[in-house]
Amino acid sequence: MSAPFSSLADFAACLRLLPGPDPDAIAAARARDAVLTKPPGALGRLEEVAAWYCGWRGDPRARVTRPQVAVFAGNHGVVARGVSAFPPEVTAQMVANFAAGGAAVNQLAGVLGARLDVHPLALERPTGDITEGPAMTEAACVAALGAGWAAVDPEADLFVAGEMGIGNTTPAAAIAHALCGGEAADWVGRGTGLDDAALARKAEIVAQAVAANPVRGGLEVLCALGGRELAAMAGAIARARSLRIPVLLDGFICTAAAACLEAARSGALDHALAGHVGAEPGHARLLAWLNKAPLLSLGLRLGEGSGAVLAMGVVQAALACHSGMATFAEAGVSGG
Amino acid sequence: MSAPFSSLADFAACLRLLPGPDPDAIAAARARDAVLTKPPGALGRLEEVAAWYCGWRGDPRARVTRPQVAVFAGNHGVVARGVSAFPPEVTAQMVANFAAGGAAVNQLAGVLGARLDVHPLALERPTGDITEGPAMTEAACVAALGAGWAAVDPEADLFVAGEMGIGNTTPAAAIAHALCGGEAADWVGRGTGLDDAALARKAEIVAQAVAANPVRGGLEVLCALGGRELAAMAGAIARARSLRIPVLLDGFICTAAAACLEAARSGALDHALAGHVGAEPGHARLLAWLNKAPLLSLGLRLGEGSGAVLAMGVVQAALACHSGMATFAEAGVSGG
Repeated sequence: MSAPFSSLADFAACLRLLPGPDPDAIAAARARDAVLTKPPGALGRLEEVAAWYCGWRGDPRARVTRPQVAVFAGNHGVVARGVSAFPPEVTAQMVANFAAGGAAVNQLAGVLGARLDVHPLALERPTGDITEGPAMTEAACVAALGAGWAAVDPEADLFVAGEMGIGNTTPAAAIAHALCGGEAADWVGRGTGLDDAALARKAEIVAQAVAANPVRGGLEVLCALGGRELAAMAGAIARARSLRIPVLLDGFICTAAAACLEAARSGALDHALAGHVGAEPGHARLLAWLNKAPLLSLGLRLGEGSGAVLAMGVVQAALACHSGMATFAEAGVSGG
Repeated sequence: MSAPFSSLADFAACLRLLPGPDPDAIAAARARDAVLTKPPGALGRLEEVAAWYCGWRGDPRARVTRPQVAVFAGNHGVVARGVSAFPPEVTAQMVANFAAGGAAVNQLAGVLGARLDVHPLALERPTGDITEGPAMTEAACVAALGAGWAAVDPEADLFVAGEMGIGNTTPAAAIAHALCGGEAADWVGRGTGLDDAALARKAEIVAQAVAANPVRGGLEVLCALGGRELAAMAGAIARARSLRIPVLLDGFICTAAAACLEAARSGALDHALAGHVGAEPGHARLLAWLNKAPLLSLGLRLGEGSGAVLAMGVVQAALACHSGMATFAEAGVSGG
């Protein structure tokens, strides 16, 4: 569907209208969990994941059958400042690789049986250099939010937003610094492979970007410091909430985009779990700020949605156990 | 095949003959990884998992296509000492539940497309009470090792040994205490749900068991302090090595059984990764003793192979990326 907003103020209004989970489905899921053929709590976080998922789906015996991954790609003016080890042409080259099925996320989505869509966003027009001013005009940001909003399949039942954009750990770090404070150096990492000198320069660039864009609201930060693929991820995550589709957050860049929603409306990410914590050092810090414990910790730092798609397998498994296991009564097993 | 051993000494000889990985396949896998369309290291532990797996399979572009899970069940004389919150009848009831497809491991194996076999081991004859003497005679232990050895499908390409046995965290703790030292209390946990008093009594029982069975060699510890399902897991893990089938270790009980192999022959578990670290507190300690970092940490404490089967999805995903991704040259992507 086309997006029901034409300004950031409209989008903020949409955020205020997002639905919550179904408490009856959560209660019924917990009651079912208590009589499954296992000791109470023996499935650890899988039990909490199952109850969370059932609540958002409004079904105490839900399963994951239609997972969707949408990868958004954008280019960044700040790349001219030397923040990436790769040239910006790689963004478009990787979009072609996604389309041809050759990237990591293609393989991971294939293992899971997930739908995968790729959305290049005006790659020929990089965003503004955030050390000099805003990344996007409001119109550009709203268009990107709308692209994300429209990308979510209403029939999906688990959603991951991934990204590709050479240099996009820099806008992510700038967003995190603007929203959460601390020092710029707290939020920068080596991205795809910076050396020590380049890492120090990246921290300076992030500090400059935040100084050059003195905005504070979550959506204003997204517009001024983000990028098209970050705004699209935020739009998609919000749209998934409107459809009661649970979301798994991917790495630092996805989480920074999502954090703008949380800053704009507290609780906006209640339908999202952290799929993993990546190797980019700001990621763990940002997840802590969001009070989200990652499902996986495997040292990934690829983006593309990769870590979250891996975590989709955990959610799928949690629901397979929850909804497929026999109860003590059904199996004739003596309770504890 | 029938087992090529009829004594613990024979089995020890088998352990000395186990093959190692193929260094050429590892080198070729690493060379391939370096040219895949991602920054070096960006897939984190998935890269290490892929090289490890390719080495054991002798194939630099291997995939996981025939995963197998074998669940072994046994009963324990020490249950008479009150070490479990569940009655021993539950072991056989759960075997019926596995056969009917109602347990957690059935659902997890189903998500993965893994073969699942269940092997009840003389459930009507519990092992000896380890606080008074050995769990098994040498003949009983060799029979259980042989049952495990015979359970591995030679066509499998990834293997998990799971277990069910009411009370079996106690023999696992006794094994860990005998092999690794420390205090008995270091190795005991609440199993399926003990209260504080029962937990303290369990530590005393573990200390008594180790005092009553003053043996030191890995296989002698397995025989004296283990149980049929633990010996069968050890036999199966050794057999998988003889077939160059990589293994994922499950929880505390599986890891204790495996640790007996490592104690019997250093390096015997090089073909095994820790699938997860469970909530039973001795598990993390025992994995540290084995120098194995778990792939997952989700608070599971169910056994049945459950955590390792979840981790099979990670290994499958790692190989899907490694063997399915395009190279920079294939995709026309500029290298970093």
